[in-house]
Amino acid sequence: MPFDLDTYLRTKKILIEDKLDLLLRNPGSPLGTLEESIRYSALAGGKRLRPILAIASCEAVGGSPEQALPVACAIEMIHTYSLVHDDLPSMDDDALRRGVPTNHTVFGEAAAILAGDALLTDAFNVMVDQGLAAGVSPALLCEAVRDISHAAGSKGMIKGQAIDLDIEVAGEDSGEVTLSGIERMHSLKTGALIEVSVTAGAKIGGADESQIERLALYGQSIGLAFQIIDDVLDVEGGGDIGKETGVDARNEKSTYAGIAGIDESKKRASELTSTAVAALDIFDEKAEALRAIALYMGGRNY
Amino acid sequence: MPFDLDTYLRTKKILIEDKLDLLLRNPGSPLGTLEESIRYSALAGGKRLRPILAIASCEAVGGSPEQALPVACAIEMIHTYSLVHDDLPSMDDDALRRGVPTNHTVFGEAAAILAGDALLTDAFNVMVDQGLAAGVSPALLCEAVRDISHAAGSKGMIKGQAIDLDIEVAGEDSGEVTLSGIERMHSLKTGALIEVSVTAGAKIGGADESQIERLALYGQSIGLAFQIIDDVLDVEGGGDIGKETGVDARNEKSTYAGIAGIDESKKRASELTSTAVAALDIFDEKAEALRAIALYMGGRNY
Repeated sequence: MPFDLDTYLRTKKILIEDKLDLLLRNPGSPLGTLEESIRYSALAGGKRLRPILAIASCEAVGGSPEQALPVACAIEMIHTYSLVHDDLPSMDDDALRRGVPTNHTVFGEAAAILAGDALLTDAFNVMVDQGLAAGVSPALLCEAVRDISHAAGSKGMIKGQAIDLDIEVAGEDSGEVTLSGIERMHSLKTGALIEVSVTAGAKIGGADESQIERLALYGQSIGLAFQIIDDVLDVEGGGDIGKETGVDARNEKSTYAGIAGIDESKKRASELTSTAVAALDIFDEKAEALRAIALYMGGRNY
Repeated sequence: MPFDLDTYLRTKKILIEDKLDLLLRNPGSPLGTLEESIRYSALAGGKRLRPILAIASCEAVGGSPEQALPVACAIEMIHTYSLVHDDLPSMDDDALRRGVPTNHTVFGEAAAILAGDALLTDAFNVMVDQGLAAGVSPALLCEAVRDISHAAGSKGMIKGQAIDLDIEVAGEDSGEVTLSGIERMHSLKTGALIEVSVTAGAKIGGADESQIERLALYGQSIGLAFQIIDDVLDVEGGGDIGKETGVDARNEKSTYAGIAGIDESKKRASELTSTAVAALDIFDEKAEALRAIALYMGGRNY
């Protein structure tokens, strides 16, 4: 019987969104602008790819979804904060996200900055507080805090965003934007958090070193494939990415698809998907969800 | 022999700033705008009150400065991020901080937002990574991450800033700004991080519950006194706070001094200082630094 990815994704999405809804409530006090702004972006939908990867990876090494859920939710909160801040007028200046007006468009810049700050800070609270409550050991939680803060911080995601802004300012004409430069930017800006979703979930589930190594390669590969496909979708206008297509071209941003061309980009994404699936060959059927996710992401609607 | 607070503060400031300088280097790669912007604000001086409190509190219960240093530096990084974001045009729109141009004035808004995000994220990395290296147990580090993220997050410092922005928008005329409202805002906006500096430092040093309880009261009291005195200095223009005086009045911000008057504010600050010192009466001479800091802060130059 083939793996039923649709049901898997739907079930895990509900698990994650119910937990996030609960975590982001403040029982007993009316919602202020801060809470509204936080909930607006955190509960606005999205694929929940990163937290699902954390859970699937935990399951792949024999762990339970419940063990990984705190770290999964924390990573989604960090991802959401990064979207809220990236959309700000002084950054990418986007008006739409996931098909709805961006946070600052609705609540104003100050509230959007604070909502992002709060989601980032509270993510570490959720990781540890809920992680301990789920029975995860303090040693494993310290490792999760360390790995995730590294992936999201000045040597990971934030560095990627800084490089992306520099590229945007420099433009294509500077001649300095190369394919490997774009790959490096993507591997930091989106890849680092996707990779750590996979490895942190697995560590919580009790993975050994050789398993972590394979899963890191899996995470790197799908992360980069994911971004290249996003670029392609942006050019071709296919898929359902909930934002204006062609927006990257408007910003004169250099993209993988823009430099390598559509065909080459699709080929590279396909290679990366194969690498990801091959990295899982030491795992048994408990890794079916990870395999199916890689193939699903590699075959998105273009 | 009276306690030599000057030497204590100077020595600890050097310890903290040397460590921060080391932590915020990226050996082997040239400084990009992101790193420059981070270092500009994190190494721009300041009293280093919060990290010194963490160290002094650790020492008060018999711990060493080295044990507390990672948590101390992490708290100072969180404090610095909050200043960088609070100064942004969409927030308090300040051009000067600690006597020099604010981060966004020098590096632009996008870089300032990213530098703040990076300092906040990296703070949790420093806390755990350096904490483990200093021999602090994973269980204590989890508690530090939990306590500090709570104090800095949506139910602490960030909520205080959100309330402060609301007060500013509403203005004094709304009739809703009361002294207890101002105290609540301060206790969240600046008090929560000062209090957790004291309690987190003590926990790392091995404090028991009754010690933590006393130190929490100490931290709450000096935190509020500190803010009330800042308000008074702002009105009177005394002291050396490195920013334009009268700036709060210009923003039509409601301050403690503005509502209660200067005399009443000084009286309240003096009471709070006494409460702080009294809270330390179960501690021996190892708490001399904490006592001296409370008296020093309570007697600032007004």
